[in-house]
Amino acid sequence: MAELILNRGAERRLKRGHLWIYSNEVDTKRSPLKGLEAGSQCQVLDSQGKLLGTAWVNPSQLICARLLSRKDNFSEDDIGERLQTALLQRQRYFDHPSYRMVYGDSDALPGLVVDRFNDHLVVQVSNWGMDRYQQVVVDKLIELTQPTGILLRNDHQGRAVEDMPLINQIAYGEVPELVPFEENGVPLLAPVHQGQKTGWFYDHRENRRLLNRWVRGKRVLDLFSYAGGWGIQALANDASHAVCVDASQQALDWCQLNAQHNGFADRLDTVQGKALEVLKAMMAEGEKFDVIVLDPPAFIKRRKDHKAGLAAYRHINELAMRLLSEDGLLVSASCSMHLQSEELLDCIRGAAHRLGRRASILASGGQGADHPIHPAIPETNYLKAHFAHLGGSRW
Amino acid sequence: MAELILNRGAERRLKRGHLWIYSNEVDTKRSPLKGLEAGSQCQVLDSQGKLLGTAWVNPSQLICARLLSRKDNFSEDDIGERLQTALLQRQRYFDHPSYRMVYGDSDALPGLVVDRFNDHLVVQVSNWGMDRYQQVVVDKLIELTQPTGILLRNDHQGRAVEDMPLINQIAYGEVPELVPFEENGVPLLAPVHQGQKTGWFYDHRENRRLLNRWVRGKRVLDLFSYAGGWGIQALANDASHAVCVDASQQALDWCQLNAQHNGFADRLDTVQGKALEVLKAMMAEGEKFDVIVLDPPAFIKRRKDHKAGLAAYRHINELAMRLLSEDGLLVSASCSMHLQSEELLDCIRGAAHRLGRRASILASGGQGADHPIHPAIPETNYLKAHFAHLGGSRW
Repeated sequence: MAELILNRGAERRLKRGHLWIYSNEVDTKRSPLKGLEAGSQCQVLDSQGKLLGTAWVNPSQLICARLLSRKDNFSEDDIGERLQTALLQRQRYFDHPSYRMVYGDSDALPGLVVDRFNDHLVVQVSNWGMDRYQQVVVDKLIELTQPTGILLRNDHQGRAVEDMPLINQIAYGEVPELVPFEENGVPLLAPVHQGQKTGWFYDHRENRRLLNRWVRGKRVLDLFSYAGGWGIQALANDASHAVCVDASQQALDWCQLNAQHNGFADRLDTVQGKALEVLKAMMAEGEKFDVIVLDPPAFIKRRKDHKAGLAAYRHINELAMRLLSEDGLLVSASCSMHLQSEELLDCIRGAAHRLGRRASILASGGQGADHPIHPAIPETNYLKAHFAHLGGSRW
Repeated sequence: MAELILNRGAERRLKRGHLWIYSNEVDTKRSPLKGLEAGSQCQVLDSQGKLLGTAWVNPSQLICARLLSRKDNFSEDDIGERLQTALLQRQRYFDHPSYRMVYGDSDALPGLVVDRFNDHLVVQVSNWGMDRYQQVVVDKLIELTQPTGILLRNDHQGRAVEDMPLINQIAYGEVPELVPFEENGVPLLAPVHQGQKTGWFYDHRENRRLLNRWVRGKRVLDLFSYAGGWGIQALANDASHAVCVDASQQALDWCQLNAQHNGFADRLDTVQGKALEVLKAMMAEGEKFDVIVLDPPAFIKRRKDHKAGLAAYRHINELAMRLLSEDGLLVSASCSMHLQSEELLDCIRGAAHRLGRRASILASGGQGADHPIHPAIPETNYLKAHFAHLGGSRW
């Protein structure tokens, strides 16, 4: 097995529990990255030659290696054991088998995501190391969960970055276009083949659960709704009306299907269009909502986008707030890892300030327990949602 | 009315929405603090002489003034309007009249806390400005909530700092030793006369609510239990057994009363003693728990205590973790405003690391919606709780 020797001091983060090795941390004079095969295993040593563990390597990436174990080896059996551990952990904290069953690094399975929708599993592999174990993963998932079908959604852009082929295929059994599952007790359908990512965003489950307590009789606006994660659950919890807004007509069709699935399509409206434009049009018409959910895609994908992205969060938070009725509730979310929770809070503060309204933050939430945060890997923590009550004119 | 003229640039924080003025921000040459009466009103001007608003002053304090309004006046009517607004906001988000009804600065009522326990209110006044309006507050509370009784718990140390007398007296009607209320659907009794602060810590309500979902059949250890906020609610949610630990025998007696109140005293044990000593004794006996709640008093009361306090959090988190069974759940909380959420997370990371165990963070919570955070006043945000699943040996 090849050896990667780190620069002096570069072992510190790993020793605290992190798993990533950056290419500039490798002593490439003593252990050239060039020539190593992407996805091959290597042993990682500190500058003194002491073993730190076993890693998967990808010489062309900024994160050129990912630590798999603190031992001198890593095998199929480790994959199986970790999958089982991940499943048992979910079973311990969830009553219903609808959850992210594997969340990459947090489950010590770098490059692997498995979302479970009852009897169907959707798998994403995003590095060459895990790619070599793909069949091992599928076989073990069958053994552990006896699914009806397993879909490989290996068509996401993360793979393109690693020069991996984009493939979307059934790995086992049968997987229909829309798979039934539930979130927070609400029966739903996930468009696993055609939808974004794995077909559903489980990460906001707890934030939605909280909102569900506060929507009875309210008029709800769900911006960037996708298939209706927030809006449909609000309707199931007696919101009087929901308007889902998305740039994709297909996403809105899924919203409608989910509303029909629950028997309350009469209380749902959908508006196709870009959120900023729809907000401006609604403003011109004098529309108001009691509850607005603002859950945009990541505006800050890379650290260097921070300034422009933060400005975009500021702008859209203010626009959304203009549509909020007095004593309304704004749920403002961000899935940008590079945006700090305090920065999003400051977007809300600033918007309220400019509109001369009182804001108070009722709650601030993050990822659900099926997206556990690895305490030594801050990058596993990306989601934030602030619940802001907006009163009248400031005192 | 006296004028306080600020130094150049000192208005910036206030313009962003903050309400506090520090004594070193006042241009004392142009507007001496000396001679102003504690609790009197003053007008606050920036260095150019432009009005920033009306404040209460206390010349002997580091925070020498607290902004009340952005206008040139502040009156009894403002107090009444803000009390009503605070109440309506709680009624909007809570089904049951058990909550913190007024949370100081966040409700634009600096120095006032009102906790509501159904038909009883407990009031705390902590600055001289609010002290002058105490009877106005009491009268308005009677009008707004028609309570059975109102207790003034003006015996907390915050008043001693402001040289205010320590008084504990009934301001209206009747208030029994133990007042009935509920939290998360569990009927409870709060020792409002003799207990800590107002008699109950509502701030952890959402964190307890989350824990309640994960305790069925579990053996729970509640450290620094006070009257059983966590342990009693865990038992009400089918924990098999709870052990409450507190240095105060009286607190443990209240735990027992709360358990009897719910009819499950047979599942509760109490241990009187200092948490560190009790933990060590339990360790020596080889005790293990499925769930451990570590909710200590603030170890960092002032900024300069940060280093020693952080070490104390590190130490006790590790001790608690040693008693946690494999695949156990640690709820690690801190109410120290000066401890960052990430620092507490790092205490958990470090403890798991030293014990060679896998940790994953399932959730991170803060204050309930009855302790709303003022987005321009970070000091209103003090509570954190991390839910850490502790697996076996790290991979």
